[in-house]
Amino acid sequence: MLASQSFEDLYPSRQGVHQFTPRHEPTVYAPNDRPAPIDREQIDAYAKDGFVVLDDLFSDVEIRMFQQEMERLTTGAKASGETITEPGSGEVRSIFRIHARSALFKKLAADPRLAELARYILNDEVYIHQSRLNYKPGFRGKEFYWHSDFETWHVEDGMPRMRALSMSITLTENFDFNGPLMLVPGSHRQFAACAGETPDDHFKASLKKQEYGVPSDDQLKQLIGRGSIVTAKCKPGSVIVFDCNVLHGSNGNITPAPRSNVFFVYNALTNRVGEPFCHQPARPEYICSRQHIVPLAN
Amino acid sequence: MLASQSFEDLYPSRQGVHQFTPRHEPTVYAPNDRPAPIDREQIDAYAKDGFVVLDDLFSDVEIRMFQQEMERLTTGAKASGETITEPGSGEVRSIFRIHARSALFKKLAADPRLAELARYILNDEVYIHQSRLNYKPGFRGKEFYWHSDFETWHVEDGMPRMRALSMSITLTENFDFNGPLMLVPGSHRQFAACAGETPDDHFKASLKKQEYGVPSDDQLKQLIGRGSIVTAKCKPGSVIVFDCNVLHGSNGNITPAPRSNVFFVYNALTNRVGEPFCHQPARPEYICSRQHIVPLAN
Repeated sequence: MLASQSFEDLYPSRQGVHQFTPRHEPTVYAPNDRPAPIDREQIDAYAKDGFVVLDDLFSDVEIRMFQQEMERLTTGAKASGETITEPGSGEVRSIFRIHARSALFKKLAADPRLAELARYILNDEVYIHQSRLNYKPGFRGKEFYWHSDFETWHVEDGMPRMRALSMSITLTENFDFNGPLMLVPGSHRQFAACAGETPDDHFKASLKKQEYGVPSDDQLKQLIGRGSIVTAKCKPGSVIVFDCNVLHGSNGNITPAPRSNVFFVYNALTNRVGEPFCHQPARPEYICSRQHIVPLAN
Repeated sequence: MLASQSFEDLYPSRQGVHQFTPRHEPTVYAPNDRPAPIDREQIDAYAKDGFVVLDDLFSDVEIRMFQQEMERLTTGAKASGETITEPGSGEVRSIFRIHARSALFKKLAADPRLAELARYILNDEVYIHQSRLNYKPGFRGKEFYWHSDFETWHVEDGMPRMRALSMSITLTENFDFNGPLMLVPGSHRQFAACAGETPDDHFKASLKKQEYGVPSDDQLKQLIGRGSIVTAKCKPGSVIVFDCNVLHGSNGNITPAPRSNVFFVYNALTNRVGEPFCHQPARPEYICSRQHIVPLAN
C-alpha cells in the first residue's frame, strides 16, 4: 500500500465557521481552441452554470440493458457496507462501486460519450473516483439535502482540487414531481465552508442523511437567491453532467414514479486524493478510490 | 346544542378493505344553462379533472394585505389545538378557523370571486366547513401524503355527500420545487375506501402526518397511472379550486422558498355534517363547523 500524499488545504471546512471562499480552479480546463465532444454552447453553459443536461445520449435499447443490470444487482441485495437502504422502508437506495461489480457498468464508465467529455472538461486522463446506482423509490422516497460533493470529497477523502465532475445517467423519467435533481446555477464558483466537525465514521450516516458538511440557511439563501433553482427534468437515457462543487439536492418523492440513475464521478488523474483533511481515517475504497486508480482507456 | 342527524353511509371506509366505489354525485351541480362566474372552459375542466387553477384572481395589494394578516396571526403563535406546528422544527404549519379569528379573512371567505363560484358549482347556499392558513416553511418543509379530503370529512366528520370543495388562495409563488400541491386529474370520480380503523383522537396526529385514511400503494398506482399528476405551479394571488374527493398531496420542501396559502372549504348548506361514520366523538369545532353553520351572504 502506498502512503497517501499530504496536500495544502486550499478549502478549509468544518472548522467552526460558515464562510465563502472563491474557487481557485477553472470549471472547464480544456483550452478553448480544442474541438469539444459536445456543442460549444453546451460547454459554455456548463462553465457558466456548473452543469448541463444532455438529452437522449443513450438509446432505448441501451437503457433497457442498464435497467436489467440494475434489477440484477439490486434483487435480493441487503443492507451492507456497499449497499445503502432507505431509512424506514429498508428499500435499496444505492449500490456502490458498480464499475467494479458489473462488466456492463465498467464498460459504460469508459464509454466515449461519457469519458471523452470528462477528459475534455478536465483536460487530463480520468479515473472513477466513485460509482453507484441510485434508486429513489416511489411513495416514500426521502429528500437529499443541499450539498457540494467537493466539500465532502475534499474534507473526508483528501481530494486536493476542484478538478472532478459527476455524470448521472437517468434510467427513469425525471418529472418535476418525483424528486428530481435540483441544481443551483453558478453556485460552483465559490466554496461554502461549513461549520461543525466531522463525527467518527460520518460516512455511514451521511450516505443516508447528511447532517454535517451542509451549508447554513444563510449560505443557502445567498447561493440560491430568489427562485434560482433548476430542476433537471429529463427522459431516461439523458445525462446530467455537473461540476464537483455545484450546490445540489433533491426533495422527497411521494409519487408512485421511482427515480433511478447510474452515477459516475470522474476525477482528473493529477487530482488523485491524498490524506483526508479532517484528520480521520480514510473512507472505504468503495466510496473513494484510493488504492485502485485505473485511468480509463481512451 | 342540536343533536346531529344520522345519515346512511354511502361511502364506507376504514372497515378493513381497500376498494373503489363509483361516485354517486355530480362534480358540478349547477344546471348547464346558468351563466358561470368563470369561463365555461374552466368549469368544464373542473368537472373533468376535479380541479382548476384560476390565475391572478387577487391583486398585489390584496395579497400583501393577506400576507400581513398572516404575519400578525402567526407571530408568537404557539402550538395549541388550533395551531399546528411542524414535526421537528416547531415552526407554525397551520392556523385553523381563520374566518372566525380575523375580520379580513372572514370577509375574504365571503368575497364573491370565491363564494359565488362555490355557490355556482354546488348549486346551493354555502358555508365554511373548515378554514385555515397553511405555511410550508423553506429548508425543512415536510411532505403531505396523498389523500382525498372527503374520505376524512365523511368518516370523521359525518359529511354525507360529495358536495363540497376547497379553495386555496396562494400567498407565495408555487414553484415546481417548493412542494407545490400535486393533484390527480379524474381521481375524484371514484371513492377509494381505505383499510384500517380510525384511532382515538386521530385528528391530532393526522393534521401533522396522516397515516390512516390514506389509499394503499395499489390504489394510488391505479388512480395515478403513469405520470398523470399535475403540479399546481402559480403566482401569488391565484386560486386553486378543487373538489372534495380529488386525490392530492405535496412533496417536502428543502428550498429556501416557503409556500403559504389561505384555505377555505365550502360545503353546500344541504350537505351539512351529521354523526361521524367512525363511531368516535365528533372532531372539534375549529376543524369542522357543526354548531356554527352560517350561510355566506350573497
